[in-house]
Amino acid sequence: MPESHELHSMFYPKTVAMVGTSPNPQGWGGTSFLLRLINIGFPGKIYPIHPKATEVLGLKAYPNVQSVPEPIDLVIIAVSAPNVPQVLEDCIAAGVKNVHIFSSGFSETGEEEGKKLERQITEIIRRGNLRVVGPNCMGLYVPASKLAGWGVKPAGTGHLAFVSQSGGHGEILTAYAQSFGIYFSKIISFGNACGLQVADFLDYLRQDPDTRIISIYLEGMKDGDRVTRLIKEINRIKPVIIWKGGMTEAGSRAVASHTGSMAGEGRIWDGFFKQTGAIRVNSLEEIIDVVLAFMYLKPCRGKQTLLLGGGGGNSVAFADICSRQGLEIPPLSEKTREELNAFIRLAGNSTRNPLDLWMIQRDTALYRRVMDIVMADPAVDLAVVDRVVGGLGDFDDDDHIQGDRDKALREVNDFLIDFAANNPYGKPLVVTTNMYGNDLHLAGLAAQRRFEFIKAGVPAYPSLESAARAMTRFVEYHQFQAQLK
Amino acid sequence: MPESHELHSMFYPKTVAMVGTSPNPQGWGGTSFLLRLINIGFPGKIYPIHPKATEVLGLKAYPNVQSVPEPIDLVIIAVSAPNVPQVLEDCIAAGVKNVHIFSSGFSETGEEEGKKLERQITEIIRRGNLRVVGPNCMGLYVPASKLAGWGVKPAGTGHLAFVSQSGGHGEILTAYAQSFGIYFSKIISFGNACGLQVADFLDYLRQDPDTRIISIYLEGMKDGDRVTRLIKEINRIKPVIIWKGGMTEAGSRAVASHTGSMAGEGRIWDGFFKQTGAIRVNSLEEIIDVVLAFMYLKPCRGKQTLLLGGGGGNSVAFADICSRQGLEIPPLSEKTREELNAFIRLAGNSTRNPLDLWMIQRDTALYRRVMDIVMADPAVDLAVVDRVVGGLGDFDDDDHIQGDRDKALREVNDFLIDFAANNPYGKPLVVTTNMYGNDLHLAGLAAQRRFEFIKAGVPAYPSLESAARAMTRFVEYHQFQAQLK
Repeated sequence: MPESHELHSMFYPKTVAMVGTSPNPQGWGGTSFLLRLINIGFPGKIYPIHPKATEVLGLKAYPNVQSVPEPIDLVIIAVSAPNVPQVLEDCIAAGVKNVHIFSSGFSETGEEEGKKLERQITEIIRRGNLRVVGPNCMGLYVPASKLAGWGVKPAGTGHLAFVSQSGGHGEILTAYAQSFGIYFSKIISFGNACGLQVADFLDYLRQDPDTRIISIYLEGMKDGDRVTRLIKEINRIKPVIIWKGGMTEAGSRAVASHTGSMAGEGRIWDGFFKQTGAIRVNSLEEIIDVVLAFMYLKPCRGKQTLLLGGGGGNSVAFADICSRQGLEIPPLSEKTREELNAFIRLAGNSTRNPLDLWMIQRDTALYRRVMDIVMADPAVDLAVVDRVVGGLGDFDDDDHIQGDRDKALREVNDFLIDFAANNPYGKPLVVTTNMYGNDLHLAGLAAQRRFEFIKAGVPAYPSLESAARAMTRFVEYHQFQAQLK
Repeated sequence: MPESHELHSMFYPKTVAMVGTSPNPQGWGGTSFLLRLINIGFPGKIYPIHPKATEVLGLKAYPNVQSVPEPIDLVIIAVSAPNVPQVLEDCIAAGVKNVHIFSSGFSETGEEEGKKLERQITEIIRRGNLRVVGPNCMGLYVPASKLAGWGVKPAGTGHLAFVSQSGGHGEILTAYAQSFGIYFSKIISFGNACGLQVADFLDYLRQDPDTRIISIYLEGMKDGDRVTRLIKEINRIKPVIIWKGGMTEAGSRAVASHTGSMAGEGRIWDGFFKQTGAIRVNSLEEIIDVVLAFMYLKPCRGKQTLLLGGGGGNSVAFADICSRQGLEIPPLSEKTREELNAFIRLAGNSTRNPLDLWMIQRDTALYRRVMDIVMADPAVDLAVVDRVVGGLGDFDDDDHIQGDRDKALREVNDFLIDFAANNPYGKPLVVTTNMYGNDLHLAGLAAQRRFEFIKAGVPAYPSLESAARAMTRFVEYHQFQAQLK
């Protein structure tokens, strides 16, 4: 029961105290958190803490947490680093348990002073048995409880969790995901992790019914064995997607100056992924790419991919790209090719895989006829349709030859959406909306089409590379789970 | 002297005959070539060949090439494959030497009929000593002579050549490159290469004063030793960028059905690149990425890169990305860090490499002060400034806090353009205009900023990955050439 989990009150606080605010609404840090909570209509009580002011942004202010007249579910600390120890002592005195330390200036500076301060607050946290997120982080983002003092304004609640050792990544992901209509259950930016560890958050998310997919950005971890056990277990019921930062030597040095963590060696992490079956990615974009597959596709246990694009040179490039990412591009069966060759003209077309059929680009009836034949082929597990935006034609000045290209593209897109949802073979179909060129109109069109496909439940990717990578990971996840059974 | 080169008259024809046109201007193939040549104002004479029509698109038509009243510098054949042998015989009879066979339906179909036709035309080409481009290709694209019957309408002439075994890639590249103001000397789409081989074209481009950078898309080649020798030699004076398609098993199968070539083994190609020092890429985008570096940057022989982006998590990601692509992210010298630490507040910033300095994002004077210090550091060979578009702020609803973000970004961009051109250290600086999210406004902004930087002579890349990859190849080219001396 997540309500009985000791972290639950942090995610759904009824009272929040904000330490380190300023009456000047232009301030960053505590003040911007406070303003945001007010603006998005946080339904609980908010107590600004200020040494002198009696009011901050229209709210009654208190000189310290002890003087707040009711129990505080969450204290957010945004004072400068040297003042953090005293505020933590105040929290202990006031009986507060849940604390988020936004302030930075600890071990991540690499300076002795910061390291000393970090040791000091770690000692206070242990002594006071505090549940602390941070320091040096953005803390919690929970659309359902309107605890969202950072990131984009939540436009909805969803089922994706993100546990991140970088607040910046958390901020970007809120905007990026939301632009595709992907909403969050919880985001946890936990920075230097002097108190609560990644395992503590995972333990909560495991039980959280609102969380169905868990994504993680990690720089280092202190309790590797516990995390490994937990992720292995959680991954069986909720896919766990992990971006491990600092895998190169230079990246590992950057980790030290970011969260003061030890990045760990490559082979240890290789072993971790092999053992847990967690899904390994290398960027925020890849997190979303994989999430789209898990949100919208039925499980798929084979990598035999039908590729449909167009152009002989493209077919070669497409096959190379998909193969490099791990998908397999099987030859189609003789029966399939015979059926296709009965009505496809061979000069300028290819009925091999990748299919290169300019004939179907303007004719959805023919498109459906082709897709019905190829998706029924037992050699095919899934399909990737590349370049649904077009591109070339939009650059071209031969519009009198090309005809009404936009209308034709829209008809093809509508057909693909319908076929993806309703094809009787139950095989996943994803599309790519990439385009060539630095064209404002095309870039906008690609963004719009990508959104339309995703909204209609068809994972759409900005490039074939990203589509192939995501599908490879999606299939490998299901293969790993199948092999556990 | 290129004028005396036997291929010169193909690229600068004064008379062109088009075989396989239709009086219906909606036709594809010969008719669209013809229409295009008329529309862009091809200055020479154009002779449509048609078995019955006396006029095609307003031009007097002739029943065959023999009946044209003057010598023809170039015949373009766009009839169906079975009719091609007869047209070639007509060319021999008319004393024509230069021929482009657009028609497809030969060995690339994989069918016996097509293979037989290909053997037949190869025999005729040899017997007639014809200089043939193709079949199954788009042929020549020469902005300077207005021989551009395909691709985008040329908006200028330039110094990049592209030799491609895919017409589709050629078409896309014309549009893609031109959208960045990169113009072509010559594009040669040569398809199945039954007559002229890649080496023949390279021999011409070597001598062509209009060509300064040569890019190539290859699926296979018949005269490997000659090509290797030529490229090794040319690469010393004109950088040669090669995309070899069909390097995976599936890609190699696609090659067979595209141009009927043998893709060749990976290790043979590895040896080829090692021996020639040619620049290896894997897509059209990568060709342009590398071309930008060669167009705008001074030679740079070291990979020690200063990275400037922002955000602790980003710094880790940036260092990982650049390291994986082959750049090195050195620690800055003690002296540099001391100078920076004298005025940079450490909490929330990092004066390590990657630099993480949100303080300078709104303050170009401070930005210049920082760049002057770090670029003077002997540990630094070049600089990459990531994410000049912004992103987060544009999604954010806290505009009252962020201030006039667009103006601040523009000032920073102007400073970077100035610094890239005028920094006294002569070290390359490139930028990335990537952004997160599926936002139409941001996508347009990124496209626009990228163009502005490039127009101002600063290579700008759509992602850090592409910037790091291109810079790695650029540096490695110069290292290879230096080691030859």
